[in-house]
Amino acid sequence: HYVTEIWGTFLALHSAGACHLNHIVEELLKLNDDPKVHGIYLHLPPASITSRVLNTLKPEKDIEGISDLNMGRLIRGDLSKGFVPPLASAVLDLLENHDTPLEGKTVLLVGGEGPLQLAVQCLIERSGMVTLKSHWSSKSLQAQVMQADAVVLLDVGNMYVPPTWIRPGAAIIYCKPALEKGIALYVVFPINLCYNEHEMILKPSIAETLFKNVVRSCSRWLKGQEYRPWHLRSLKLQPLTPVPSDLEISRAQIPKPVDQLAEEIGLLPEELEAYGRSKAKVRLSVLERLQSQPNGKYILVAGITPTPLGEGKSTVTVGLVQALSAHLRLNSFACLRQPSQGPTFGVKGGAAGGGYAQVIPMEEFNLHLTGDIHAITAANNLVAAAIDARMLHEATQSDKALFNRLVPSVNGVRKFSPIQISRLQRLGIRKTDPASLTPEEINAFVRLDLDPSKITWQRVVDTNDRFLRKITVGQASSEKGQIRETGFDIAVASEIMAILALADSLGDMKNRLARMVVGTSRSGQPITAEDLGVSGALAVLMKDAIKPTLMQTLEGTPVFVHAGPFANIAHGNSSVLADKLALKLVGQDGFVVTEAGFGADIGMEKFFNIKCRASGLRPSVVVLVATVRALKMHGGGPNVGQHSANLSLVAGGCRSNLRKQIQIVHLFGVPVVVAVNVFKTDTQAEIDLVCQIAKECGASDALPCNHWAQGGRGCSELAQAVKEAASKPSDYQFLYNTEMSIVEKIRTIAQRVYGADDIELSPEAKTKTDYYHQQGYGSLPICMAKTHLSLSHMPDKKGAPTGFVLPIRDVRASIGAGFIYPLVGTMSTMPGLPTRPCFYDIDLDPVTEEITGLF
Amino acid sequence: HYVTEIWGTFLALHSAGACHLNHIVEELLKLNDDPKVHGIYLHLPPASITSRVLNTLKPEKDIEGISDLNMGRLIRGDLSKGFVPPLASAVLDLLENHDTPLEGKTVLLVGGEGPLQLAVQCLIERSGMVTLKSHWSSKSLQAQVMQADAVVLLDVGNMYVPPTWIRPGAAIIYCKPALEKGIALYVVFPINLCYNEHEMILKPSIAETLFKNVVRSCSRWLKGQEYRPWHLRSLKLQPLTPVPSDLEISRAQIPKPVDQLAEEIGLLPEELEAYGRSKAKVRLSVLERLQSQPNGKYILVAGITPTPLGEGKSTVTVGLVQALSAHLRLNSFACLRQPSQGPTFGVKGGAAGGGYAQVIPMEEFNLHLTGDIHAITAANNLVAAAIDARMLHEATQSDKALFNRLVPSVNGVRKFSPIQISRLQRLGIRKTDPASLTPEEINAFVRLDLDPSKITWQRVVDTNDRFLRKITVGQASSEKGQIRETGFDIAVASEIMAILALADSLGDMKNRLARMVVGTSRSGQPITAEDLGVSGALAVLMKDAIKPTLMQTLEGTPVFVHAGPFANIAHGNSSVLADKLALKLVGQDGFVVTEAGFGADIGMEKFFNIKCRASGLRPSVVVLVATVRALKMHGGGPNVGQHSANLSLVAGGCRSNLRKQIQIVHLFGVPVVVAVNVFKTDTQAEIDLVCQIAKECGASDALPCNHWAQGGRGCSELAQAVKEAASKPSDYQFLYNTEMSIVEKIRTIAQRVYGADDIELSPEAKTKTDYYHQQGYGSLPICMAKTHLSLSHMPDKKGAPTGFVLPIRDVRASIGAGFIYPLVGTMSTMPGLPTRPCFYDIDLDPVTEEITGLF
Repeated sequence: HYVTEIWGTFLALHSAGACHLNHIVEELLKLNDDPKVHGIYLHLPPASITSRVLNTLKPEKDIEGISDLNMGRLIRGDLSKGFVPPLASAVLDLLENHDTPLEGKTVLLVGGEGPLQLAVQCLIERSGMVTLKSHWSSKSLQAQVMQADAVVLLDVGNMYVPPTWIRPGAAIIYCKPALEKGIALYVVFPINLCYNEHEMILKPSIAETLFKNVVRSCSRWLKGQEYRPWHLRSLKLQPLTPVPSDLEISRAQIPKPVDQLAEEIGLLPEELEAYGRSKAKVRLSVLERLQSQPNGKYILVAGITPTPLGEGKSTVTVGLVQALSAHLRLNSFACLRQPSQGPTFGVKGGAAGGGYAQVIPMEEFNLHLTGDIHAITAANNLVAAAIDARMLHEATQSDKALFNRLVPSVNGVRKFSPIQISRLQRLGIRKTDPASLTPEEINAFVRLDLDPSKITWQRVVDTNDRFLRKITVGQASSEKGQIRETGFDIAVASEIMAILALADSLGDMKNRLARMVVGTSRSGQPITAEDLGVSGALAVLMKDAIKPTLMQTLEGTPVFVHAGPFANIAHGNSSVLADKLALKLVGQDGFVVTEAGFGADIGMEKFFNIKCRASGLRPSVVVLVATVRALKMHGGGPNVGQHSANLSLVAGGCRSNLRKQIQIVHLFGVPVVVAVNVFKTDTQAEIDLVCQIAKECGASDALPCNHWAQGGRGCSELAQAVKEAASKPSDYQFLYNTEMSIVEKIRTIAQRVYGADDIELSPEAKTKTDYYHQQGYGSLPICMAKTHLSLSHMPDKKGAPTGFVLPIRDVRASIGAGFIYPLVGTMSTMPGLPTRPCFYDIDLDPVTEEITGLF
Repeated sequence: HYVTEIWGTFLALHSAGACHLNHIVEELLKLNDDPKVHGIYLHLPPASITSRVLNTLKPEKDIEGISDLNMGRLIRGDLSKGFVPPLASAVLDLLENHDTPLEGKTVLLVGGEGPLQLAVQCLIERSGMVTLKSHWSSKSLQAQVMQADAVVLLDVGNMYVPPTWIRPGAAIIYCKPALEKGIALYVVFPINLCYNEHEMILKPSIAETLFKNVVRSCSRWLKGQEYRPWHLRSLKLQPLTPVPSDLEISRAQIPKPVDQLAEEIGLLPEELEAYGRSKAKVRLSVLERLQSQPNGKYILVAGITPTPLGEGKSTVTVGLVQALSAHLRLNSFACLRQPSQGPTFGVKGGAAGGGYAQVIPMEEFNLHLTGDIHAITAANNLVAAAIDARMLHEATQSDKALFNRLVPSVNGVRKFSPIQISRLQRLGIRKTDPASLTPEEINAFVRLDLDPSKITWQRVVDTNDRFLRKITVGQASSEKGQIRETGFDIAVASEIMAILALADSLGDMKNRLARMVVGTSRSGQPITAEDLGVSGALAVLMKDAIKPTLMQTLEGTPVFVHAGPFANIAHGNSSVLADKLALKLVGQDGFVVTEAGFGADIGMEKFFNIKCRASGLRPSVVVLVATVRALKMHGGGPNVGQHSANLSLVAGGCRSNLRKQIQIVHLFGVPVVVAVNVFKTDTQAEIDLVCQIAKECGASDALPCNHWAQGGRGCSELAQAVKEAASKPSDYQFLYNTEMSIVEKIRTIAQRVYGADDIELSPEAKTKTDYYHQQGYGSLPICMAKTHLSLSHMPDKKGAPTGFVLPIRDVRASIGAGFIYPLVGTMSTMPGLPTRPCFYDIDLDPVTEEITGLF
């Protein structure tokens, strides 16, 4: 870190005045942006220090303190952000050395104008002296000089005050610009000070102050790099009754500009990439800047086995951070999944929370956001296109033709690309000169020899398009009969989404993308994205998606939205990186609340065994969300629709499903707080009963929450309980060791989490398991693909079923994401549109640009 | 527009000091952002005017002039942006009224601190008076008062100066805050002035200045709303030899922050939506703000019939604006198409220009940009999913079941959505009560009755995925056997892309989306997106895509990137809205350079007959790009690869293809300047020959350009020629009247543009033409889908073929986009991947985040 000087000499190279200034401004803009420059000293002729130049100079780097803003600060006496102008400080030093106390003495300032001179006056007056001003041309100059205790001569030029004018004991200070010294000299002192010989000793106080200011600027910058306590301004909420629609509530609240939110939570401007006014990507460099900052508390929101309508985990997550940040004044961050656009236009509608616990603007949250899912779609489908095109080219070309095209001669030189060298290495060929390959090696290199019946990679689209579930591709004549059956999944079911959620750096994501297995060769070898040569392009397509998106809740508290993998064939949790960033930002006493999809038996189990294993993070508390509605179902009531009060159904649900889910949390050694998401049809007796039984079953605490109707205030007791539970020691442990066999790991989950007697593998599942062990994938964790509507594999078995054997229909692998996923039953990876999809009500007013019908 | 006051009374409602300040800050932030508020007056107790409050207040609205920045401006005497503090101004007024000239008089300031008081001192000194300062507690106060020509008593409180102290003829001014007056009064005068009874007359000058400052702020705001001349800072370019790769050149230049570029070209901060640091969407409200601003000159870059490698229209477009803006210092804007990601990872590579004429950062330009193509993909595929799902639901449900689901009873009430009412109206059913429909009307309403063999809507993906050209969908058992053949196009071939390019407002886009015809019912009725109920959702998905994206060239000149419809089945031009915005922004003497795809016979003909018809804009000049390489081909040389000098081939190409293309431009009455895009293999004699023949053929001028190797400087002669040609009167005319029959319009294009003897329609084309006339689509303009490699339909006929009959294989319609497109031959709407696609070289360094291999 150094002082940068713009030299008069440098500028003297250009003659035209206008060009001069443009040049200075251009240089200043560069220096303003340069993070290595902490001070800029304008060593320029006074004529060049125009308003435009002064206003261009970044006040934080204006070590001369001459910009308008710094001058205003100086005048007002607020130097916490500005700088004392070195000349003024030097003059004051000299005056102090000459004669103290200064209070009440008279100083005559002669000549000069502009900010430097005003600063001198200001500092002199601050020290209690009285200033008088005069000019070189003033007739009464001699009389004024004779009366003064000290005389400061500004803009000296060739002017001179005869020593005879000076009162005995008075000081005279000459300030003389040194610019005329000219060209290539390195002038440390911009202004020479000449002193009255009777009194003063020359000292380099100007340069000293200048360097002090640089040090000051530097340390301010360093301070800015440190962890900064939040000064969060929460947005006031005035909940209405009855509660309006989600979109109406969202629109009634004006979100803070995202750059302001970022500043409040200690992010630096350069760490933010705004996407419009209400959302921004946050750069991963924050992790490096705050690496020595201890993490905050890590809270997971999970749920009991839900009804098909869901029990409100997202609203609890949002309500809880609203309560923690806006009501308990504790730093907190919610980490949410980005919703797929499929359901938004299909059946379910948006996913930004609900009622008075929402992420805003909800339409931004539910539409394209910052393009991450689109990036995943593009990357996923590039792999698919590469697979089919490669099979076609291999089917229609000789080894030699393939080799000539894959490793073409450019200007007479053949070279492997780095991606091709990686493939050669995996093939055990340690050569880098294409000419040296044997025909066998060429054959191995050019032929992936993919078995069309063993391609596991599907295309994706972020639309509920059921007709793409099973399709035949390649039917145009240009594809020469290479047809095959395949299908599309919804985009969030892509393995690339799971990778985004589990990666913990750009390099890690790139490696995982390269490792993805897309199918098997006819000889049984797994073929990866890197074998296709496409892994670098995938990383390029995903380079922005890896940065979490910052948004805010209705109460102005921060939220990260990042990743959203499917909760059945993948792990259903938001991203490791968002959690890590948030844990640094909230500080040691803060809270990060993240959410796991489906019931605790699925989302939470995967959170612990897959996500926490990948991240190394350990949660402090699990919040288990329950509703009276779902508990009645588990107690023997109908799936949906039991509206009347029924304490015995509620008790039955609590003593079966709720108890079992609490036990599952305790398997991992983490305290659990039960949150009863209150519906207006619930009775107080029902709610009290749930809380009572939950505590009997070992919950640290159990409380009703009314965030939907009241926002954070309705969740503040829960927040308090979570805070207390988080202060207790937890004794985290994984459920299984990954070195166990795949079958043993599956059995452990089935027996200990689901309550099954045992598991039963289909012959296909057995074969696959053996194959994965043989390929070295045996030590990956397990990601169960099971219905979320029951603890068992049978959706209609509510409560806590026992006495069943869990059938494992098939076992698949996401090698890039890093897990094995056994299929328990059939999983749909592409939702459909109903007869009347949501989109019938969605509209846009072209004048106001307001959206209607999103919910 | 009004003055907003934050009342002490309002704030008195809150007791705690900290809450006070947070409240004030919150209110200030809202008022700062409120475009209707032009002045904020802090009617607050002095203790509340803290640094934080002062620093929060937006200086542009600080009509009291007390923020640090405004105080600095006042001190430095630069009031072009700040405000004179009203109290200071009132004091000075009173002093002037009392006694002039003021020069040399002595004023004693008693008491007071803070910015208001400093401002008083500053203004008094500026008027040439000498200020002395004292305090109420000073022992020498009486003596000081007696010597002064005027005394200003600040922060009066209960203090009082006995009249006997005052020198005869001297003035005394009391400044007394009025805050204590308290609660609900509307206090216009924040400070009461009490005057020495012998001398002065009370006048409301403080309120006067306050309101003057509001007016000043208002008129600055109004001035800000007006067209503002540019002050573009161009980026210096130091071209290297040999010319490095496009990516290396792009990366070597640091782009200006996009908000700075926007400010330079007169955009207001609120008109910008940044997407990261180097690109931003520009709001369409600019068009309204600048509606009375005359348009600049409108320049079209077209080309001769190209070789398969392209002749560099994009680089000429970029080079030309670099020359105009950075070298001729004329405002100019390039309007470019957003490239598809397909070719970026396929064969062609990026499309950001090339060499030293590029849009930067080129990787941003070539990747997701601001998500417009992703939005188009999402919208297009939502229509497709809606079509197939609807056919399935109609096939499997009774009229009654469909009706009950389409118009469900919600809380006992059935209602049509607005989109459904539009459909009823198109069906001629003027009812709004669902219960009143007859069974026949219900049948007509619920059954679109789409003919599966007549669905024209395809799905899209922005990937070169040849295996999706022809597919069978619906093969999963859940789709109950409703299989059908269909296909995917590349995303930019979607009709929604053509609509984005032609729409001239959000409302217009929405109407066009609703009108899109997706297929035909079994009874032959066209079925629209609105019939599917999806048109509102489409508008919502496209609401951000309609805003053009601002980027910059290598020399820091502005570029709009917006839309990029296919140039064969659509019109291949960038958006109407980007052109319109740019034409306002460049100002009357500025230039907007836009580009038409393929040769002038295709892209330019469509630009004139389709785009200009939709926009109402008229071009001033056409720049026709030619290369020696392509001219040799037209003169009889091989398609690619004739590297050696050959004047006779060049002359042959000029006298055939170049001459014909110049004639085509002249059909429209617009002057043409020929730009020879120089390659390093071209000889001077060849270039001279092209220029000579071009001028003989009627070009206004013809010049070589070296932008690829030299940037804008290499194009400055072309820029000068374009400027001159644009100053000549042009006599624009359409080629055909849209009221002519479809066949007549096609014949006119074929004969007058392509040089065909006649056209010949296939039976299918004839039937379709009749059908379109019958449906009322007969008066749409024509968008020919013809090879770009020849003026004829035969790609290998180079030069200017004659004596051929143009076969019209089929005729199709894009009703939403608003054109009929006859097919001349087979058009591929889905490119494929070669054996070694570009992606083999594309990689990302995970540490530096640098991309390699894009070109």
